[in-house]
Amino acid sequence: MEQRVSLITLGVEDLARSKAFYGALGWSGQEVEETVFFQAGGSAVVLWGRDKLADDAGVEPRSEAGGFGGMALAQNVRSPGEVDEIIAAAEKAGGRITRPAQPTSYGGYAGYFADPDGHLWEIAHNPGFTLADDGTLTLPDFNR
Amino acid sequence: MEQRVSLITLGVEDLARSKAFYGALGWSGQEVEETVFFQAGGSAVVLWGRDKLADDAGVEPRSEAGGFGGMALAQNVRSPGEVDEIIAAAEKAGGRITRPAQPTSYGGYAGYFADPDGHLWEIAHNPGFTLADDGTLTLPDFNR
Repeated sequence: MEQRVSLITLGVEDLARSKAFYGALGWSGQEVEETVFFQAGGSAVVLWGRDKLADDAGVEPRSEAGGFGGMALAQNVRSPGEVDEIIAAAEKAGGRITRPAQPTSYGGYAGYFADPDGHLWEIAHNPGFTLADDGTLTLPDFNR
Repeated sequence: MEQRVSLITLGVEDLARSKAFYGALGWSGQEVEETVFFQAGGSAVVLWGRDKLADDAGVEPRSEAGGFGGMALAQNVRSPGEVDEIIAAAEKAGGRITRPAQPTSYGGYAGYFADPDGHLWEIAHNPGFTLADDGTLTLPDFNR
């Protein structure tokens, strides 16, 4: 199995609400058959009905949505100021700030918001991770 | 907010177990401070303690792990045969096949497995999505 991710699908309760939320953050996608596809670098982020996703995957949907799903997405950005800007934009768009932006143990600066379905996004400035102009992230060699 | 994902962090109950699972699928990562980092194309997949992730994000960890977390990852591959191979490898590695590989409504072929913590992976062959040699995925223009 190659070491890469093609799609990240977020199960949502209300597609229009979620599309508006990501739209308010400046994301532009294509809606087709009650699914929204966002090109995200060399991968894609997809919004799809939570029940449909569970059914497609062959698992039982949990009755409760909005809690901790055990997974978080992160976007690394180029400065602490950019972290503040995106966290503020997420709050304005109706996101819930679960952790205000603050300095991190690794010498960076980060905060978290939850989207309308509780999907977690960390927005982080981490000077130890290389971020190319096109947004490509390269991990450091931690042994050095 | 730029339209991209830098990190996908999977909260896990047992880091060694999860590292072994992904290792059995051929993934090679770096372990540092009880965290495993896998370079995955222009992003990274991270394994980290479920409780630590929840605490870091400022949310309550759910007592129950292993159920549907409302999110799924997918890897698109180049042939139906590759889908079968990866699903078989995941089962051999201790994953749970939640949906056996089968033809899909969009003319593709896909199956799902859950990793040791219930994180869902769809392995899909979708002839409508462009997959570059380096694994970069490009969505089609759905209006055409």
